[in-house]
Amino acid sequence: MNFIKQLEQRWEDSNSLLCVGLDPNLSRFPDIFKNSEKPILEFNKAIIDATHDLVCAYKPQIAYFSAESAEDQLQATIDYIHQKYPEIPVILDAKRGDIGSTATMYARESFERYKSDAVTLNPYMGYDSAQPFLAYADKGCVFLCRTSNSGAADYQDLLVEGKPLYIHVAKRISEQWNHHNNCLLVVGATWPEQMADIRSLVGDMPFLVPGIGVQGGDVEAIMRSGLTSNKQGLLINSSRGILYAGSGSDFAEQSRKQALLLRDEINQFR
Amino acid sequence: MNFIKQLEQRWEDSNSLLCVGLDPNLSRFPDIFKNSEKPILEFNKAIIDATHDLVCAYKPQIAYFSAESAEDQLQATIDYIHQKYPEIPVILDAKRGDIGSTATMYARESFERYKSDAVTLNPYMGYDSAQPFLAYADKGCVFLCRTSNSGAADYQDLLVEGKPLYIHVAKRISEQWNHHNNCLLVVGATWPEQMADIRSLVGDMPFLVPGIGVQGGDVEAIMRSGLTSNKQGLLINSSRGILYAGSGSDFAEQSRKQALLLRDEINQFR
Repeated sequence: MNFIKQLEQRWEDSNSLLCVGLDPNLSRFPDIFKNSEKPILEFNKAIIDATHDLVCAYKPQIAYFSAESAEDQLQATIDYIHQKYPEIPVILDAKRGDIGSTATMYARESFERYKSDAVTLNPYMGYDSAQPFLAYADKGCVFLCRTSNSGAADYQDLLVEGKPLYIHVAKRISEQWNHHNNCLLVVGATWPEQMADIRSLVGDMPFLVPGIGVQGGDVEAIMRSGLTSNKQGLLINSSRGILYAGSGSDFAEQSRKQALLLRDEINQFR
Repeated sequence: MNFIKQLEQRWEDSNSLLCVGLDPNLSRFPDIFKNSEKPILEFNKAIIDATHDLVCAYKPQIAYFSAESAEDQLQATIDYIHQKYPEIPVILDAKRGDIGSTATMYARESFERYKSDAVTLNPYMGYDSAQPFLAYADKGCVFLCRTSNSGAADYQDLLVEGKPLYIHVAKRISEQWNHHNNCLLVVGATWPEQMADIRSLVGDMPFLVPGIGVQGGDVEAIMRSGLTSNKQGLLINSSRGILYAGSGSDFAEQSRKQALLLRDEINQFR
């Protein structure tokens, strides 16, 4: 099934726009994982079991696995979600981008090796670097547009014909790259005005929205700026704020509490 | 030792500006690897042994390993170079880029897990996404500037205050990101005029130059455009043209022939 259709169904069924980012940082794990053989997988499974009914998607961040030589645990985490909660889409956060022949290999990594439903991508190298991903018509391609970090302004805000670069990125992706209706954009929660400008350009294209919580984004502002007319269109991501809500043996329960609070805060503005 | 110093020493000692890209594509391997247990590693070792005296650097492209779940063979390839040919720098081609906390993990992947001497990076997310890499003062950070592919024009050529975006990228990296003198730029061989513009801006900052061979770049033109006053400054990369020069049991010998031809063609214009 087309990724965006799958996502719309999941938004409907879960009544949630919350995406939980799986950024497993061993140095922040509760002590109970100290002697675990596969601590990352065990931690992720606990978080997933505790939050599955509250989320519209999970977003594992590949860097946290690669830094620990834990590709097997990334694979097992995604398999676990697909097998136990097949209705929940998985977005691999990898921000890939390269010339076509290499992009073909990266697309195999994301969609065939890890079997993610979508992947995040960097648009800087242009259409032929995106095409091997776009060609997987049922998979989601989530392009960086206006990111949540402070350095985003360095290049993304530069004015081209009177409009910031990220507007040109949004426009080109929406008008020229979206043949299969499988494109999404990353739009940071820290920039609600920019989000509103992008929303007015791209119709109901979904936004993956990082930057809530630790990074300081405001839920009400982003709901006003990014929601589509059918009250969907947003994957509001929280990673550290949910994963590390507790550090005792009840850590998963604490994560659930934070996820519930955030889901409800989001729904209050729908 | 600082990466750029290491590279300058290697340029001097090898009398070569040739960088061989290790893009191991199983479907193009000679038949003799059909029953090999670690075909990627064995292929790479044969290529490295056949070309080591002709190159200034090796550049393994991580996507080719990741698509095959062959992280162990990437690790073993880099270890092999470091142990047998410690004077040859290794650039991990990964084009990473993410918010600071994630970039810290990617930097660990590149520099601590794989022990690469340098890594390629995507500048789109700005300074804080680069900082965790730049902080490794002895490692090289090779930023995409003007890439060799056709889609590069989509965003990199957009005019900002009358100058293309890639010029702003080069300028900011050269003036604001290069505190440790560990920055390099990717400048495609297919765009010699653009290369000359960038060279005039950034002094002797080294360029990694893909796009020779299969992609159609012209050696004489890039030597005219990119060489520094001391006849160095370029890592001219060839991957497929060298790796797949032959397909019989003498494949490594054929690769050496191609590498020698290209090294000599390059040196003819120094």
